[in-house]
Amino acid sequence: MNNSNSTTYIADTICAIATAAGRGAIAVLRLSGNQSLCILKQIFEKRRGNNAHIKSHQLYLGTLFDNEKELDEVLVSYFKSPHSYTGEEVVEISCHGSEFIQQRILELLIEKGARMAKPGEFTLRAFLNGKIDLLQAEAVADLIASQSKTAHTMAIDQMRGGFSNKIKELRKQLLHLASLIELELDFSEENVEFADRSQMTTLLETIKIELFKLKTSFRLGNVLKKGIPVAIIGKPNVGKSTLLNSILNEEKALVSEIPGTTRDAIEDTIVIEGYSFRFIDTAGLRHSDNTIENMGIERTYEKIKQANIILYVCDISDVNSESMEQVLNEFKTYIRNNDKTFLLVANKIDRLEEIPAHLKEILELETVFVSAKRHENIHLLAETLVNAVKNKNFNGDILVNNSRHFEAISQALSALGQVEKGFENNIPTDLMALYHLGAITGEVTSDEILNSIFSKFCIGK
Amino acid sequence: MNNSNSTTYIADTICAIATAAGRGAIAVLRLSGNQSLCILKQIFEKRRGNNAHIKSHQLYLGTLFDNEKELDEVLVSYFKSPHSYTGEEVVEISCHGSEFIQQRILELLIEKGARMAKPGEFTLRAFLNGKIDLLQAEAVADLIASQSKTAHTMAIDQMRGGFSNKIKELRKQLLHLASLIELELDFSEENVEFADRSQMTTLLETIKIELFKLKTSFRLGNVLKKGIPVAIIGKPNVGKSTLLNSILNEEKALVSEIPGTTRDAIEDTIVIEGYSFRFIDTAGLRHSDNTIENMGIERTYEKIKQANIILYVCDISDVNSESMEQVLNEFKTYIRNNDKTFLLVANKIDRLEEIPAHLKEILELETVFVSAKRHENIHLLAETLVNAVKNKNFNGDILVNNSRHFEAISQALSALGQVEKGFENNIPTDLMALYHLGAITGEVTSDEILNSIFSKFCIGK
Repeated sequence: MNNSNSTTYIADTICAIATAAGRGAIAVLRLSGNQSLCILKQIFEKRRGNNAHIKSHQLYLGTLFDNEKELDEVLVSYFKSPHSYTGEEVVEISCHGSEFIQQRILELLIEKGARMAKPGEFTLRAFLNGKIDLLQAEAVADLIASQSKTAHTMAIDQMRGGFSNKIKELRKQLLHLASLIELELDFSEENVEFADRSQMTTLLETIKIELFKLKTSFRLGNVLKKGIPVAIIGKPNVGKSTLLNSILNEEKALVSEIPGTTRDAIEDTIVIEGYSFRFIDTAGLRHSDNTIENMGIERTYEKIKQANIILYVCDISDVNSESMEQVLNEFKTYIRNNDKTFLLVANKIDRLEEIPAHLKEILELETVFVSAKRHENIHLLAETLVNAVKNKNFNGDILVNNSRHFEAISQALSALGQVEKGFENNIPTDLMALYHLGAITGEVTSDEILNSIFSKFCIGK
Repeated sequence: MNNSNSTTYIADTICAIATAAGRGAIAVLRLSGNQSLCILKQIFEKRRGNNAHIKSHQLYLGTLFDNEKELDEVLVSYFKSPHSYTGEEVVEISCHGSEFIQQRILELLIEKGARMAKPGEFTLRAFLNGKIDLLQAEAVADLIASQSKTAHTMAIDQMRGGFSNKIKELRKQLLHLASLIELELDFSEENVEFADRSQMTTLLETIKIELFKLKTSFRLGNVLKKGIPVAIIGKPNVGKSTLLNSILNEEKALVSEIPGTTRDAIEDTIVIEGYSFRFIDTAGLRHSDNTIENMGIERTYEKIKQANIILYVCDISDVNSESMEQVLNEFKTYIRNNDKTFLLVANKIDRLEEIPAHLKEILELETVFVSAKRHENIHLLAETLVNAVKNKNFNGDILVNNSRHFEAISQALSALGQVEKGFENNIPTDLMALYHLGAITGEVTSDEILNSIFSKFCIGK
């Protein structure tokens, strides 16, 4: 890490509005750095007692002054270094939430010597001061961005250091491996093979297995964080769009029953029981000579590949053994697939008096019988979706959900592949995997990496 | 006041998100009521020390639990009754600002026995518990809504109790008057006129003058709070809309020079040096036989009546003595008017090499020479606008800026008129003015009044 650059970061006192933008009952501004308390005292006067005595972790009611005129009545707290979020001297000002007041206080803090914080700079300082590692810092951003319970749980776990400990443990094993290799090199000059080479290869294998598990967890982790992609497919006019609308409406009904159920209308993403589902409506599948239509169908197959759950919708009033067999055949690679869940949705049950037994037999797959139009059994479909995810769920395992981590782990794995080859050919190889794992927690880092991570934060954190 | 209703208000513990809606680095939730601390302790665990010991005005870092699973790392503070905003037991929770976390904490607080606060209910409780009077409560709402420095200053002054004291002082004088009237009534039975009747009439006159001052201050107070209406008028094609755009652009340029200068694009309201101006573009004024056009012109005259500042725009390249005299004659009622400022804006100076001396003479009024198109001298116009307001400014006088107060004062005044008439005809009259003034500060109030005031607040305050 370029430490000279880091110290210039640390030298000045930064400030920002920490609460959401806009008008609220109250708003909170934050200062971090050596001058925090000194800057505060220039504009703040306690309601009671000597202004010089401001203790850490106490709350003080008082007046904030704008050039001797009262600006606001505020609550102020001070966190003495290192017992603060950033590890530095931190001051928080809780003011009335008018935009005018928030803005004016920010200006006053800057007038008195603070500078506007960059996005994520408070958390960057917490990292640079050793309060948290890079994984935990990234978890803070994920925590703030989390929209569903699963995304939130992953962020909390990561913030608590579970993933950090895992990576540190693997790095420790790698260091052990490095010392074994060192030992072998000493012997190799004498052209004697080190007695316990098998210990090395076993260790290498163990580390590789662990890393591979983490690498493969990314698919699920990423999907749980960003929303599980669900492709709705089927022939034209079987009611795919009606079904989508019905699900989205169902969700509105769910809101009142299940807490935390919210919908992002723009993306057609809904949260059911803490899981975020991202619905993808697709063009109807049929054989066509129309180029444009075929392009649409091609895109549908692309979306099927990206989806974790495939809802194949058929019109129950227009189904026969032959057509269903064709479907099952067409999608057989997806039906028996550990990565994907293939569900049959038999729509338009309102058109039949009852579902004929022979149809039930045809639909040998897990099938949900619904009427999208009349909004019947949509809650069963929602349940089935949740169960499909629960079945593949993590059981407390660590899930990699960040592409930076995924890449570093992939690079570490391929570096270990090189080491393995080196073993076989008796060519000593650098343990670059150590570097890659260190980059995840921030034990090894660069300003470039830090910038790219923290620039995605919001200001004030 | 209906006290039985008020106690049901007070019996339960209320909670709300107090910071602006949406995602931020942090968010603050607030609890008020007897159960605040008890509810907190069910979901919160201090990082260090015994959870039972939570002192007032201290900050505690700890974990918030959602059914034994960690929900967030939070900072918690407790304000022991009566040393809190509401006067009740108050708890504040500062959490990570994800919408999921904010929402979930709110749900947990409700699960544990709090109920969602109504808009303004925290401030209502502060009023009901005698921490602030009604004027100060209303000032809190104004403070949060304030967009300009003047609106903010008026709110702060009112929150500090300046207006309250004034009303209380007037009420005291009214009570004195009441006792004098009482005395006179005692004597009147003996058909002897009370010796010092002049004392009574003098007192009545003094109170009336004070109330009249307050009543008339409403025009300025209201305008300063909501934005000073500026009508831009003139013949067609003299460049009124170009001038408006130019002013709005000037303002953008001003942003970097003068702090706190902001523009509300939707309403074409801009803030210059702390004053909010509300610009009203109007239809061109000319004699026409077209009915629709004449309706537009009629509306222009309506807007002129409502405006505090009238900018009469003329095309300097197309002006002569005759036409100007006509203008001055047409608007003479507004030119010498204490309520309005009439300014001449001579536009299109870019069309002339220099301004001919004889034109300057014609434009005997205060005139700003500009080129809206080339954005010349617009800063001078902005300066002139600010000076026009400063000249009529309050000099620390109390300005009534709330229509509820304006109405109560008007009613008090007319009630005093009745009293005066009663004097003249020797008919004793109730001092209803006492009631009207009491309603302003809340010494006399009803649930209806309280509801109408606090329902306009934001939730969380």
